[in-house]
Amino acid sequence: MRYKITVEYDGTKLLGWQKQLDGPSAQEYLEKAAEAFLCRPTEISGAGRTDAGVHALGQVAHFDTEKKMPLFRMREAFNAHLKIMEAPVAVINVEEVSPDFHARFSAVGRGYIYRILNRRAPSALDKDRSWWVPVPLDVSKMQEAAQYLLGNHDFTSFRAAACQAKSPVKTLDKLEISQNGEEIRFCVEARSFLHHQVRNFVGTLKMVGDGHLQPNDVKRILDAKDRSQAGITAPACGLYLNRVMY
Amino acid sequence: MRYKITVEYDGTKLLGWQKQLDGPSAQEYLEKAAEAFLCRPTEISGAGRTDAGVHALGQVAHFDTEKKMPLFRMREAFNAHLKIMEAPVAVINVEEVSPDFHARFSAVGRGYIYRILNRRAPSALDKDRSWWVPVPLDVSKMQEAAQYLLGNHDFTSFRAAACQAKSPVKTLDKLEISQNGEEIRFCVEARSFLHHQVRNFVGTLKMVGDGHLQPNDVKRILDAKDRSQAGITAPACGLYLNRVMY
Repeated sequence: MRYKITVEYDGTKLLGWQKQLDGPSAQEYLEKAAEAFLCRPTEISGAGRTDAGVHALGQVAHFDTEKKMPLFRMREAFNAHLKIMEAPVAVINVEEVSPDFHARFSAVGRGYIYRILNRRAPSALDKDRSWWVPVPLDVSKMQEAAQYLLGNHDFTSFRAAACQAKSPVKTLDKLEISQNGEEIRFCVEARSFLHHQVRNFVGTLKMVGDGHLQPNDVKRILDAKDRSQAGITAPACGLYLNRVMY
Repeated sequence: MRYKITVEYDGTKLLGWQKQLDGPSAQEYLEKAAEAFLCRPTEISGAGRTDAGVHALGQVAHFDTEKKMPLFRMREAFNAHLKIMEAPVAVINVEEVSPDFHARFSAVGRGYIYRILNRRAPSALDKDRSWWVPVPLDVSKMQEAAQYLLGNHDFTSFRAAACQAKSPVKTLDKLEISQNGEEIRFCVEARSFLHHQVRNFVGTLKMVGDGHLQPNDVKRILDAKDRSQAGITAPACGLYLNRVMY
């Protein structure tokens, strides 16, 4: 039987989703928890990697097991063992799925949230949960610039050097920027993303917000197909994998 | 000259607001920061204590100094030194006030927020920032029960044994309970509070929400003037000192 799990994690003390030799990852914690209650090594496949420090509200993964147990009990078992390990990871949902479901290959969309705290004073409570930008940002200019990124484009200018995607051409379905008090929130959706694509969008749009770039510079940067033209990579701590669509 | 500061802190790793011999406190971090840039020992007086683990979005304190510096620079100096100490504390505002201003005695009201995360799965991201209650709570019953607590009462039933207030009679101005998805949020305001009063309200109202008590039991508990009649003290991690009114 194949199961789909939805996972929340605080990425602050993780090297990311994927198992690493040199530190903790969400995948490793989940596989250890699964092994503890399924009593055999269990591979857990995620919908996609997240970088060190990036959070998840709705990462999705799947695994196979012969063992029969009620779904709610499986969730409780995961969370009980994650708690014992003091893992910053929680399983928020477990579903049975058909054997041809694949967390990564069946996904038809991914949604990310990026949070900027835009105020002069640093934050004690949202440290590690948002990017603190102390200079005032012009949200309407950032919104204007974001329009150039929507749709089907060659996103080479926003792609990390280490990106393993076959093609830099992607379709960006949504890039909404909203302001609520001191928080500026980006909601970004696409079928799939290049490595660092969301963080590079945010880093460049922040430079529009603070006046270092004009909104139409973003079109020039996109057309240049050159990573060196775009802005900085926004820090990992503001990024949340919000949901994976199937 | 007297200055008023507004302070945010993550109480998770603090013993509370007030200086303690056996561990870190918000007051101690602020006094160390002030000493570092004012170049002399500086006493910082808060509007009120908070317990270990309780957070603040808007604690207020005052201090005196002869040193003249622009207000924004004073805030930057506080935050620079707090960062060096890796203190989970930030100064979000500095104002000059008249010499008769007193953070505690001039206050005419205090507002607290309490957050419950009400879902079966634990939280990775809101751990230490909310009280995780895995059983479903009936918010409308909790709202009904809260009405009995509003106004002027003898709150002995909701007062910690260690409370040092002269009288258990207080006036509760506001106790609003709202639900937003999986979060239940309490907004509580009064001129002043007894020790553990908000956490004892929440602990008792939670027992109304989960069916252990009926809404009108809260009236009986209040009238009993007996701490043993009320419910548990809700954990510190869900409580935030939101603001102090002058």
